[in-house]
Amino acid sequence: MQLPQITRAQLERHLPILNWSRSYTRDTATSDVVAAVIVTIMLIPQSLAYALLAGLPAEMGLYASILPLVAYAIFGTSRALAVGPVAVVSLMTAAAIGNLGLTDPAQIALAAITLAFLSGAILLAMGVLRLGFLANFLSHPVIAGFITASGILIAASQLRHIFGVDAHGHTLIEVASTLFTHLPETNFFTLTIGIAAIAFLFWVRKGLKPLLLSTGLPPRLADVLAKAGPVAAVAVTTLAVWLFGLQNWGVAIVGTVPTGLPPLTAPSFDPALWSQLFMSALLISIIGFVESVSVAQTLAAKKRQRITPDQELVGLGASNVAAAVSGGYPVTGGFARSVVNFDAGAETPAAGAFTAIGIALAALLLTPLLFFLPKATLAATIIVAVLSLVDFSILKKTWGYSKVDFIAVAATIALTLGFGVETGVSAGVILSIGLHLYKTSRPHVAEVGLVPGTQHFRNILRHEVETLPELVTLRVDESLYFANARFLEDYVLNRVACDQPLKHVVLMFPAVNEVDMSALESLEEINKRLSEMGIRLHLSEVKGPVMDRLQRSHFLDELTGQVFLSQYDAWRALQPDPPTGTDQESLAAQ
Amino acid sequence: MQLPQITRAQLERHLPILNWSRSYTRDTATSDVVAAVIVTIMLIPQSLAYALLAGLPAEMGLYASILPLVAYAIFGTSRALAVGPVAVVSLMTAAAIGNLGLTDPAQIALAAITLAFLSGAILLAMGVLRLGFLANFLSHPVIAGFITASGILIAASQLRHIFGVDAHGHTLIEVASTLFTHLPETNFFTLTIGIAAIAFLFWVRKGLKPLLLSTGLPPRLADVLAKAGPVAAVAVTTLAVWLFGLQNWGVAIVGTVPTGLPPLTAPSFDPALWSQLFMSALLISIIGFVESVSVAQTLAAKKRQRITPDQELVGLGASNVAAAVSGGYPVTGGFARSVVNFDAGAETPAAGAFTAIGIALAALLLTPLLFFLPKATLAATIIVAVLSLVDFSILKKTWGYSKVDFIAVAATIALTLGFGVETGVSAGVILSIGLHLYKTSRPHVAEVGLVPGTQHFRNILRHEVETLPELVTLRVDESLYFANARFLEDYVLNRVACDQPLKHVVLMFPAVNEVDMSALESLEEINKRLSEMGIRLHLSEVKGPVMDRLQRSHFLDELTGQVFLSQYDAWRALQPDPPTGTDQESLAAQ
Repeated sequence: MQLPQITRAQLERHLPILNWSRSYTRDTATSDVVAAVIVTIMLIPQSLAYALLAGLPAEMGLYASILPLVAYAIFGTSRALAVGPVAVVSLMTAAAIGNLGLTDPAQIALAAITLAFLSGAILLAMGVLRLGFLANFLSHPVIAGFITASGILIAASQLRHIFGVDAHGHTLIEVASTLFTHLPETNFFTLTIGIAAIAFLFWVRKGLKPLLLSTGLPPRLADVLAKAGPVAAVAVTTLAVWLFGLQNWGVAIVGTVPTGLPPLTAPSFDPALWSQLFMSALLISIIGFVESVSVAQTLAAKKRQRITPDQELVGLGASNVAAAVSGGYPVTGGFARSVVNFDAGAETPAAGAFTAIGIALAALLLTPLLFFLPKATLAATIIVAVLSLVDFSILKKTWGYSKVDFIAVAATIALTLGFGVETGVSAGVILSIGLHLYKTSRPHVAEVGLVPGTQHFRNILRHEVETLPELVTLRVDESLYFANARFLEDYVLNRVACDQPLKHVVLMFPAVNEVDMSALESLEEINKRLSEMGIRLHLSEVKGPVMDRLQRSHFLDELTGQVFLSQYDAWRALQPDPPTGTDQESLAAQ
Repeated sequence: MQLPQITRAQLERHLPILNWSRSYTRDTATSDVVAAVIVTIMLIPQSLAYALLAGLPAEMGLYASILPLVAYAIFGTSRALAVGPVAVVSLMTAAAIGNLGLTDPAQIALAAITLAFLSGAILLAMGVLRLGFLANFLSHPVIAGFITASGILIAASQLRHIFGVDAHGHTLIEVASTLFTHLPETNFFTLTIGIAAIAFLFWVRKGLKPLLLSTGLPPRLADVLAKAGPVAAVAVTTLAVWLFGLQNWGVAIVGTVPTGLPPLTAPSFDPALWSQLFMSALLISIIGFVESVSVAQTLAAKKRQRITPDQELVGLGASNVAAAVSGGYPVTGGFARSVVNFDAGAETPAAGAFTAIGIALAALLLTPLLFFLPKATLAATIIVAVLSLVDFSILKKTWGYSKVDFIAVAATIALTLGFGVETGVSAGVILSIGLHLYKTSRPHVAEVGLVPGTQHFRNILRHEVETLPELVTLRVDESLYFANARFLEDYVLNRVACDQPLKHVVLMFPAVNEVDMSALESLEEINKRLSEMGIRLHLSEVKGPVMDRLQRSHFLDELTGQVFLSQYDAWRALQPDPPTGTDQESLAAQ
């Protein structure tokens, strides 16, 4: 009996770890460990903060930063991507779970775990079915608008922790209005901690590294210290709460975070819950994948490496399934931490596995220290991190370049702020597809003439060209398909309606990449109508794939005119008094 | 005080009746009356039958054939279109009302009236906003598949009347399974009437006219008599039931049909009902409009007349609102009766108004005669009428021409039969848009070379062409937009990856009708990456509108190469040893 042969290359394609682990050396390991230490320091406060943003207990953030990183190290293709809880996906998790209207913390945690499982399953399925191209339907402007609006929503949602008041909601209006209502209840100790933390973190970001460099520290160490800013903020504010007993003065603290490694968990298999969470899981998967893949591609390009988008889907899918079985919630590759990982010298995905060990140690040893950590400090961490996502320049860029893109990005921003993340990004996708279809349903059709002294034909309205009274040449600047088939019919028939000397219409097809069944029927109709008026219809510069297809229909038999290889052949053949021999040539060209 | 001036031309555009009524003569009136008589004879049994198909009382079919015809005569632009209840829209009405789960006949009638009102309002709104192009998103194959599947569903749903048993459902499986369950209860008197009527109607359709002609009758009269076939079937079977008291033997009859003109009715304004019916009304509007406009266009073309699609929306919208205020249900232009109207010599929409008078007389005088009319006869009328809609040749045509169109049509047929009309047509539209986007997301890219002795460039794989080792020219056969931007990036970078002597890449853009923001960012990325490899990027044959837009971005400043007016200019300029003077020329071409 012979087993099906699996080659090493196939295995390596699906398990990228086999690829890089072969050439793993002590030097590479050292680089990876250094990067892992820096990322761990950065990731501990971020994990806690994003879990709170998602409306989950802080420890779920830590759990989501352990096993998922190991899974990505095995299945992922990017050498620098750092996976874990990220801001936008945490916000989307909060929205998805908010829709369910749950109040029991155990049920909320179960929903988050199930969401991670579903989105892992969706990513894995997309990877296996090679559906990575679906992510392309999120246009760059829609993503940019969505990220900016999400950043604003996230920052706004964290203000309640800064003011120490109650506020909630999934849209900017809900958040702002509940916040304003409760503003008189502001806790001034909390506000002081929050504002001090924000100010400190901004200063760390802009001023600390230059300062450290000026004291003569080596650049790499200065960098590490600057990244440790949030840890310093956490340590100092936690100490302050403990020393002055500020929790008794109304400062909200993280409280008990269970000590120990992540528990083994299982998602819910309740079909009702699955159907409620499915659309959210799909959106989280696609947004998470797009964000992650664009970070991975940017970093890979810097080192002339390549990533495999379909295998990235598998890597992220495995990470999310890992999150689901270890008490986490949806994860993806984060921008800031991946850049830090890259800059710190991570050479292989092993850096992620080492980071996981760091976070696991934190979960085992540090959680008792987090009891007095004020939520305001975590909120400050989030606000400073997400404000770097907010970038309105895309509005200006698209306004100058393309009004259609501008509409898509402006609508995405407005709808995300006004109706929440899920409505915003869905509307952005639908709108950009709709606007694209609308544009292609009214194609640009140019009447062209010969540029004197060349064999080149251009628009008679834009260039000085030669024309003939018996001949109209229309260049159709779009593939012909159902949405614009009737438009072309109307256009051609209107153009020829009152043109008496006309004998020939040439449709020039260099830009026609497809003629579908509906368009074929329209062409047959045009041919028939023109023939009734005594006008012959010709085609020129029909592309190979289009011609192949036309040859499989009856259209070419019915066509009253000819098909010319080039428009110049058509021009010469259809002259009222053609030079001798042209007819033969053009026939040969068919 | 001066009122805004409305010109006669503007008024005529919105009230087409002003246009044709000016030149209305006694001759035209005679033609119209003759056509009206024939259509009335045809329409009486059809109206009753389609109302039963829609699950409504028979008189609602008559009511829907009076005022709506008058409204269309005023606002419609087609001179031969006959408006009224039609098979497919009746089936869709049955599905829409079936979704509501109502049992009270008064509530069912109110729902049908509300559906007519909503679909009238949608059509009017589309007409005023000039949204007629939306109908283009129903591709020809999807419509063909949908009509075929609807015909089968309708015929299947009528079999219960032929067998005289209870069966129901909105999908083929539901209808067939309930029918089989009840088959032992078949009423043999009903079955005899039903089969006899079907056989007679088929014979009328195929054999009667030739027979009448052979007896020496004038062709026009033979035609009229052949069209009166269903009336003969109605008369004979009604008489048979009355004579033999078959209603006592279980033959289902129409029963009391109220005598008199249509009542004045008002739709419900209950927001809950509106939101339940909205999607159905939208689908009915679009399907009805597409069906109607294609009939109108076919007939107009035969007389070199033109119809105005946006004004047609207004005409059909007014008809449906008229149906709603006069106890009717959704109507549209029907194929069979419009052809009859046209063949019978209708010259203006006044023929429709005369038909309305005929139906009104029938509602006033004939309804008592309909008491003993067996439902089996009406079912036979429907079955014979709809079987002419069933045409599977579209499957063969699309299979040969385009697999993508085949998938769309096959899925539309399967889903309409399997899941009902609303799911079927929605899935057809979404699928054809999805497949179109999928195709454009993986564009055809051809590497091209010079056809010797010409200035023409073609695919190196299909033609014998000249190439240069330093130069790769890629012709991109698709507009560049978000869905394929990354594809192009990958394609170009893969192509140049291991090509050592390469110095220049020319992207030839004759088929690129658009470069959106996402694609612009991809081009910037390609330019940057190629530049890092020491390769210059050029563009050629960029279309006017695309060039205009590129000039508004920074891309042309960053471009490492040039933009050439024609590919031949690029070819000459980028030769390793270019002829003198070329550089100046190509610069001038920018």
